[in-house]
Amino acid sequence: MNKMDKITIIEPKSIETRSFEIITEILGDRVFPQEQQGIIKRVIHTSADFDYADNLVFGNDAVKAAMKAFQKGCTVYTDTRMAYSGINQTNLAKFNSQKECYIDHPEVAEEAKKRGVTRATVSMEKAAKDEGHKIFAIGNAPTALIALYEMVKEGTLKPDLIIGVPVGFVNVVESKELLMELDVPYIVAKGRKGGSNVAAAIVNAIMLEGLKQA
Amino acid sequence: MNKMDKITIIEPKSIETRSFEIITEILGDRVFPQEQQGIIKRVIHTSADFDYADNLVFGNDAVKAAMKAFQKGCTVYTDTRMAYSGINQTNLAKFNSQKECYIDHPEVAEEAKKRGVTRATVSMEKAAKDEGHKIFAIGNAPTALIALYEMVKEGTLKPDLIIGVPVGFVNVVESKELLMELDVPYIVAKGRKGGSNVAAAIVNAIMLEGLKQA
Repeated sequence: MNKMDKITIIEPKSIETRSFEIITEILGDRVFPQEQQGIIKRVIHTSADFDYADNLVFGNDAVKAAMKAFQKGCTVYTDTRMAYSGINQTNLAKFNSQKECYIDHPEVAEEAKKRGVTRATVSMEKAAKDEGHKIFAIGNAPTALIALYEMVKEGTLKPDLIIGVPVGFVNVVESKELLMELDVPYIVAKGRKGGSNVAAAIVNAIMLEGLKQA
Repeated sequence: MNKMDKITIIEPKSIETRSFEIITEILGDRVFPQEQQGIIKRVIHTSADFDYADNLVFGNDAVKAAMKAFQKGCTVYTDTRMAYSGINQTNLAKFNSQKECYIDHPEVAEEAKKRGVTRATVSMEKAAKDEGHKIFAIGNAPTALIALYEMVKEGTLKPDLIIGVPVGFVNVVESKELLMELDVPYIVAKGRKGGSNVAAAIVNAIMLEGLKQA
């Protein structure tokens, strides 16, 4: 047998469709709220990790709030260049929206060093000063989430949605618990898992839901 | 109790150190070959997924071959902008090396459309035509891995290392099995898991090992 015979011949565009069929098959008779379904499946698609079927928590009408932000036009702020790169530019443009990441901004690096805090913290503070509707997609830095928590508590930030999916071992679980206490729309991956890929997948899934409804 | 009391106060630079200590604690008495240890732990660090302690397979003196490529200076080719963004530019420069991603190159898109193949396939063919030492870091597209497999079989490509960690449900497992049959250095995440974040983490871990030895 030719080694290549194991490969399924499939049109590029059909790969994603078939992938989602397989994910749906594996999920079996699990039922998710209609507006969350596409997001949960896309996160599994991006990670091949079915833990996300249990980990993802949606608070304060998160999906509806995000849709509204996109309908009005918003900026999606990320804490890493990876998450930034993963967010679909073509679909953002359809919503007159944009993405922004201040983590490697020279002023941010300088101020973080001076204050002995992370660049992620300062990048969130910088984002909060911008005008307009804001979605935060945090896949890496718990300190970014903590900065957002503090600004919301102080009343200096009113985000349309916070996606809190940092990954890791120090302050990650705790920062997600803080976020879930806030009275703002949030999507959280409970526990240690998450990542820039997961953060980007959630943003992309929300936009796809919005385009389906439009 | 103040909600913030749950947060561990820790210097930004110590977060990574503490994370690796926790990973080492959780891995307990598991022993890995010396040169693989840093890579396995960094992938767990980037995913919080301990499956990678079992999934990662190193073939044909992969780490040694990659070190040699970095010592000579090489180009790391990725199949996504996310993996590209995740690879540490500062450390690449220390090895007189660079990163490249042709996935969004206009010629690549055009040729893919004409031939009815993925952009990932064409981007790998384009990379193969470049001069110099080559490391491929594939975190997304099985078709990229399949293209690399075919070029190695034909004798038109001699990579220094192929990192084969695409994630997903269609042809992912099969493309990794093809790669593991080749007589070239490879690092593979067996099964469906992987991702652009994992691909970048492996490249970054190899560079850090190289810098430690230098």
